Amino acid sequence: MAAKLGRTEVLSLLSLSCACVGVLANTFQGDGEPLIASVAFSGLAFSFTYALIRWLGPAFKRAGFKGKDLSKLRQPEIPETMGAVCAIVYLFIIIVFVPWPFYKDIVAATSGGGNRDVVFELQQVETGRLLHKFPHSKLASYLSAILSLQSVVLLGIGDDLFDIRWRHKVLIPAFASIPILIVYFVDFGVTKMVVPTFLRPYLGELFDLGWLYYVYMAMVSIFCTNSINILAGVNGIEVGQSLVIAFLIVFNDALYLSPFTPYPHPATDSHLFSLYLLLPFIGVSVALLMHNWFPAKVFVGDTYCYFAGMVFAVDGILGHFSKTLILLLLPQGFNFLYSAPQLFHIIPCPRHRLPHFNPRTGLMECSIVEFKKPLARPIAEVLKLLHRLRLLRIETNEKGEVVSSTNFTIINLWLVWFGPLREDRLAMGLLAFQTGCGLAGLFVRHRMALWVFTQDNL
Amino acid sequence: MAAKLGRTEVLSLLSLSCACVGVLANTFQGDGEPLIASVAFSGLAFSFTYALIRWLGPAFKRAGFKGKDLSKLRQPEIPETMGAVCAIVYLFIIIVFVPWPFYKDIVAATSGGGNRDVVFELQQVETGRLLHKFPHSKLASYLSAILSLQSVVLLGIGDDLFDIRWRHKVLIPAFASIPILIVYFVDFGVTKMVVPTFLRPYLGELFDLGWLYYVYMAMVSIFCTNSINILAGVNGIEVGQSLVIAFLIVFNDALYLSPFTPYPHPATDSHLFSLYLLLPFIGVSVALLMHNWFPAKVFVGDTYCYFAGMVFAVDGILGHFSKTLILLLLPQGFNFLYSAPQLFHIIPCPRHRLPHFNPRTGLMECSIVEFKKPLARPIAEVLKLLHRLRLLRIETNEKGEVVSSTNFTIINLWLVWFGPLREDRLAMGLLAFQTGCGLAGLFVRHRMALWVFTQDNL
Repeated sequence: MAAKLGRTEVLSLLSLSCACVGVLANTFQGDGEPLIASVAFSGLAFSFTYALIRWLGPAFKRAGFKGKDLSKLRQPEIPETMGAVCAIVYLFIIIVFVPWPFYKDIVAATSGGGNRDVVFELQQVETGRLLHKFPHSKLASYLSAILSLQSVVLLGIGDDLFDIRWRHKVLIPAFASIPILIVYFVDFGVTKMVVPTFLRPYLGELFDLGWLYYVYMAMVSIFCTNSINILAGVNGIEVGQSLVIAFLIVFNDALYLSPFTPYPHPATDSHLFSLYLLLPFIGVSVALLMHNWFPAKVFVGDTYCYFAGMVFAVDGILGHFSKTLILLLLPQGFNFLYSAPQLFHIIPCPRHRLPHFNPRTGLMECSIVEFKKPLARPIAEVLKLLHRLRLLRIETNEKGEVVSSTNFTIINLWLVWFGPLREDRLAMGLLAFQTGCGLAGLFVRHRMALWVFTQDNL
Repeated sequence: MAAKLGRTEVLSLLSLSCACVGVLANTFQGDGEPLIASVAFSGLAFSFTYALIRWLGPAFKRAGFKGKDLSKLRQPEIPETMGAVCAIVYLFIIIVFVPWPFYKDIVAATSGGGNRDVVFELQQVETGRLLHKFPHSKLASYLSAILSLQSVVLLGIGDDLFDIRWRHKVLIPAFASIPILIVYFVDFGVTKMVVPTFLRPYLGELFDLGWLYYVYMAMVSIFCTNSINILAGVNGIEVGQSLVIAFLIVFNDALYLSPFTPYPHPATDSHLFSLYLLLPFIGVSVALLMHNWFPAKVFVGDTYCYFAGMVFAVDGILGHFSKTLILLLLPQGFNFLYSAPQLFHIIPCPRHRLPHFNPRTGLMECSIVEFKKPLARPIAEVLKLLHRLRLLRIETNEKGEVVSSTNFTIINLWLVWFGPLREDRLAMGLLAFQTGCGLAGLFVRHRMALWVFTQDNL
């Protein structure tokens, strides 16, 4: 990878940035137009990330952030942890963006005239300025979201530096979600859930989860981050899946903001909030994907997975669509369940479960775990059943004992079905699968929600 | 340094932690007692930092964060960047602390009874809870402070990892102060300054600085962080000076909260806020100092200097006593001015200007910069004058040309006056000087403010 940007690249990035700055300058003429500003900021986020990845690559390698790409013939050494660059640009952009969603309120509060309709309460203060009902609570939750994201990046970089043990890793997102939980608590967050119709006779219409709601929120962040972290190991798959999920959430948000939806919809604000967080995320991730796609020129590092997962978790929690979010992460959930026998050591788990690169064909093949000791009878039977269901591929010896099986990850399963494949084909297949599952999930969410709830909130 | 804690250490840390947890549990009985809770949290912060520094030391060395202590006979290799541990414990504590200052308001808002007097505005909301005038703006500024501190830690770690160039380093605190500036802007911060009496005929009583006020705030954070960063290089001096400054600010805060001060004083809240930020800082810094004091077992890294400086800057800006803060940093300011000729290359500047360790005596001596080319006439004359004023020590050759001089740092100046000294004596002397200057500064601030302002705000 050249550390210098080519001439076309410089020109493209510069013209994109200039266009974005122009759009931003224009937003001040109206009500701040936060959505348009957010799109412009995402363009800037893309340009910054793209340039910084190139400029900082050599520095990262010098500082020891580098790794060998084992799925290539020459096993080139490339920069690692580039997700940190992404994350820091993202945080910078999202902090600078803060005034836009509140611009309307700032203008209303400071001019005093023209926008009287939004001034609910006037009060002469020491400074001689007018106070109106400024959405402070919105500001606090926005800031808490940034705090949580920043925490996860800080801890993620720690993980990339020190290679923290698996059982400590799991807790990183829990720690990082503390700011959001605390502000939710201080800010009188709603801890009630709408109860599905068939449970209403027992629980009533709304059920107050109380402190369990906080446990639930922490679980969502642990699930989002770690489920992305374990579906990894192929060029572009970490960033690719995150982008697919981000686009699906944006699509879902758009449903609430489309001209066909009655306005003002009670959920409009939270879905706008969700977009403000996601659009710059898409910006930085696209720039990263362009360098991480097959053949990868940089690795993303655990930092990226934590960061991406936390963006979704924060987005889902503060946007009040955490159940929909889980629906979009079904492939990751399946991958976790499918991996569980190995993760919990019911079946031997090798150090790495990445698919195997065949240097002769240049294609990726399933990686295999060999069982040195014969497996317990019931486990062997289950494996044989899974083999017949084509959910696994095992090998048996002449005695009928299972001697090896493919590793329990969705990536290997995909190769059982369609392999061997070139690395980019493999990534593309998995991303298509993710997209399909997500669209189906959203369809279920909006068309069939009425079966279990009295109304769809769309 | 033993990675394991000794038995006495374990017992002391455990009993301190238990006592703190006990105190914290008790705070829920009254109004949350945020000040007492803050003290208890500081105890916890101390214990965590103390234990983590010991446990993580070897991991830091393995990850490449290590350095040689050149001012020792054997030049032992010890862990670097331990300030990052400090900073992360601090951030964790300060985030968990958030509910306490707002506990009174939360109780008032949720119970509805008993505390009616603080309920200004009642409103039945969707959730059935009561809303009262919750100090959202206080919450937002508190969160923005945490964001700025987290940003500076993130960028500081980047600096320790990548050894950023000096001219980029200077901007780190400016970037990190963005969250606080933005929230200040969004939250209708006051940008007016009280004008000294002798300028009132020209400027009026209050002068609106407008956007210059934001530049001023950014400058304060750049000054605080960098001035601590350049007064460094002797065991314990970075942490020691930060602790002295912190104690002086706490003393100043206490003046506003003492039983003799009329209550409620308009500045009570901002000085309480300042204490909430400083007490845990003192907790983590004392734990670090115990490992960084002569003979040092760990180094603090640039991260600590950025972090400490930003704590003061944030504290001074949001506590509205930035001018007092600058008064407490006078020795650092002097050190900067005194260093300026070398920093700006008017006089040659060697790579390191640390005092020189004499292995024969075991004492620290002034470090010397040699002038290979003869200096310009006026510069040489100024140096000779400074030499006569005992503000420098120069050597001249037979022709009367200046051939060498001590380096331009306050540490070397101290050695010109009192040297050679053992490293801890040197640090102690400088800290005593810092304390003396600070106390004098506070005396001036409170006794003589009336000469330039119509009233002291105490």
